[in-house]
Amino acid sequence: MIDPLEPVDVRMRGFARRTTVEDALRWLDGKTERLDEQIVPLAEAAGRVLAREMVSRVDVPPFDRSMMDGFAVCAADTLGASPYNRLVLQVVGESLPGRPFYGRVCSGQAVRITTGSLLPVGADAVLPVELVEIAVGDASHSRMFTQGEVSPGRHVGRIGEDVEAGTTVLPADRVLRPQDVGLLASIGVTDVPLVRRPLVRVVVTGNELLPAGSPPRPYRIADSNGPMLSALVKRDCGVIVEVDIVPDEPGTMLEAMRSEADLVLVSGGSSVGQEDHAPAVLVEHGELPIHGIAMRPSSPTGIGRLDGRLVFLLPGNPVSCLCAYDFFAGRAIRALGGRSKDWPYRRTTLPLARKIVSAVGRLDYMRVRLVEGLVEPLAIAGASILSSTTRADGFVLVPANSEGYPPGAEVEVYLYDIIS
Amino acid sequence: MIDPLEPVDVRMRGFARRTTVEDALRWLDGKTERLDEQIVPLAEAAGRVLAREMVSRVDVPPFDRSMMDGFAVCAADTLGASPYNRLVLQVVGESLPGRPFYGRVCSGQAVRITTGSLLPVGADAVLPVELVEIAVGDASHSRMFTQGEVSPGRHVGRIGEDVEAGTTVLPADRVLRPQDVGLLASIGVTDVPLVRRPLVRVVVTGNELLPAGSPPRPYRIADSNGPMLSALVKRDCGVIVEVDIVPDEPGTMLEAMRSEADLVLVSGGSSVGQEDHAPAVLVEHGELPIHGIAMRPSSPTGIGRLDGRLVFLLPGNPVSCLCAYDFFAGRAIRALGGRSKDWPYRRTTLPLARKIVSAVGRLDYMRVRLVEGLVEPLAIAGASILSSTTRADGFVLVPANSEGYPPGAEVEVYLYDIIS
Repeated sequence: MIDPLEPVDVRMRGFARRTTVEDALRWLDGKTERLDEQIVPLAEAAGRVLAREMVSRVDVPPFDRSMMDGFAVCAADTLGASPYNRLVLQVVGESLPGRPFYGRVCSGQAVRITTGSLLPVGADAVLPVELVEIAVGDASHSRMFTQGEVSPGRHVGRIGEDVEAGTTVLPADRVLRPQDVGLLASIGVTDVPLVRRPLVRVVVTGNELLPAGSPPRPYRIADSNGPMLSALVKRDCGVIVEVDIVPDEPGTMLEAMRSEADLVLVSGGSSVGQEDHAPAVLVEHGELPIHGIAMRPSSPTGIGRLDGRLVFLLPGNPVSCLCAYDFFAGRAIRALGGRSKDWPYRRTTLPLARKIVSAVGRLDYMRVRLVEGLVEPLAIAGASILSSTTRADGFVLVPANSEGYPPGAEVEVYLYDIIS
Repeated sequence: MIDPLEPVDVRMRGFARRTTVEDALRWLDGKTERLDEQIVPLAEAAGRVLAREMVSRVDVPPFDRSMMDGFAVCAADTLGASPYNRLVLQVVGESLPGRPFYGRVCSGQAVRITTGSLLPVGADAVLPVELVEIAVGDASHSRMFTQGEVSPGRHVGRIGEDVEAGTTVLPADRVLRPQDVGLLASIGVTDVPLVRRPLVRVVVTGNELLPAGSPPRPYRIADSNGPMLSALVKRDCGVIVEVDIVPDEPGTMLEAMRSEADLVLVSGGSSVGQEDHAPAVLVEHGELPIHGIAMRPSSPTGIGRLDGRLVFLLPGNPVSCLCAYDFFAGRAIRALGGRSKDWPYRRTTLPLARKIVSAVGRLDYMRVRLVEGLVEPLAIAGASILSSTTRADGFVLVPANSEGYPPGAEVEVYLYDIIS
């Protein structure tokens, strides 16, 4: 219900002191300490963030091993061998995976060996099978001929040559690469201390909204911010606890903001109208130091805290919602998860096809297309036009102290598609 | 078991005709048609690939709606209104979400309206609540005063202004952005036709290997390629059906290669030694047109087909395995999934700190670090040294026709960390 007894420009009054983007980020960055650690099976660790540095307790490889199929030998015994000067060696055993040769290889002796097997004591090189001949008719295979030389250490993987015990193999805060997971497997790690992923609750308000996928009803529209925010949170490696569509009513808002989560996103009802209860609830039960930001779109954004958790009041208009998420909420989710605060967007610098005009005193988020190597601002750029962000290739920022850019100016474009 | 009766350089004979990387990619690209489509709930669609273009069957918004809390009016009635010249209008009803005002707004009339509600017939603008005063003591609220003007269309979201019915909103092959998911929700899409994700089977051979996480046993080592390949496949949006560690034995290999999958990765036993059965199995039951590639590491890589599915024989040495995966298998997985064949790695161009030497006739994959803006080749670069890929920031490619680069040469570095 509208109460027109509360007149004259409530909105303009409420946002008389708009916070700059820089100040909002400064406040926010002071409130986003990395979450605690949790132990996760190695198989689920790729792409996640290491909570502590990892030190190997073992050598890799754990023993001197053969890198080839062939014969473990004393390299000196092969000196001078060639196809024209074959040298004979006595085969005294074999070394297989898990069934090594425990004896000593003396000068003049050789031990059959397969890739990955223990190099016996006394041997210092592996003679590849290609350099070897066995005397025809020697049923016992007890003698072999080398027709080539090997130098000491040849085809031998030395104990600890990949990783020495005691080495820090990966630093804290590392986003684990596929090969990091392989390395951890090779040093025997099965469970990994990772930074916990932030739990995010999405609260969508708006009496006109129907949950995505519900049967159509006259003069109601499907919620698009819930699905979009869920995808954004997932991109930033947060975990969605729940997406709730709730009436914008103080008790319900408070309950939703207090339910399990590390961080709450409220979509819609973020402004200073009579129907916007979320800001009042935050002011009463928590804090709302930032409400109204000098940017377009997204100026009716609020950032506060309740019971120690961050609460983001995101405008209901979908472009504003996307922009406010990306500027503030996504940054906080990445920081809580131990990740870089930087945007995940790729950047490219190209000349403008047409001028961009912007008001001094606010930051502008302009959707653009790339057309034949030029940056083309999208004509339709209303905060309610979600399709402007699906037709755009990315966006350009115009800082608060700029009136815009002339045609031909080189501008930095943030590309929406993370990977080409 | 080694049979030394098969002598002299089998390996060198087997790979006498090494395929160039370009030829291998050409063959491969002819065999990686995009998979068929599957229908997936919208909530799981972000980041996946659209199989068909999406056309909206509805207008967004589906009706003319208010973008503000205020009064629906005939804009002409507000002409000349100001705080010093308040104009009176008669309030004839209200329009709420799902409970619109079905009557007509005539000149001199106004209808209370909330954000997102239907703009009644006859009205052509919304007067924001901030510009309105109600006569004190008018308990029925039947009259209001406007103290400002609005122009026609002001604060009205027109039917179809975001999306018109019949418009193609997203093209086929689109990797769905968060905002795309929002847009699909807003046009009422609940299930999305996506390109099926390729099912990938990983078969790890090597008698010396223990599955990652199994209790240590003397002179055996933990498998690191299985976990690494699983993470790589996940990165490229494939689905791991299973990681099997199997003995390199023809019957077992054939069975593993024939089990459910769109694509099979065999790690280890890819070469031409006596113990390497996978190549022979492929030759006998399928095809192996590529075996031995002019590159380092990864030269003992094989690419073939069995029962119509691609089979990749990846070397067991972990760096070779990573490199062969990235050059060939990852590309095929991305292509089957409808994604770009390009590497997901970011690139940067910087000068070399020290020279890189490479043999003509093969492509080299050199791991490098970035140190103070210079590209530093890693000294230890053996194919068995997995830690060289965890200590490296990325890699540099030296093409087959190059002998390397001098210090100071500008080289392109592929960065292992996908996002900074």
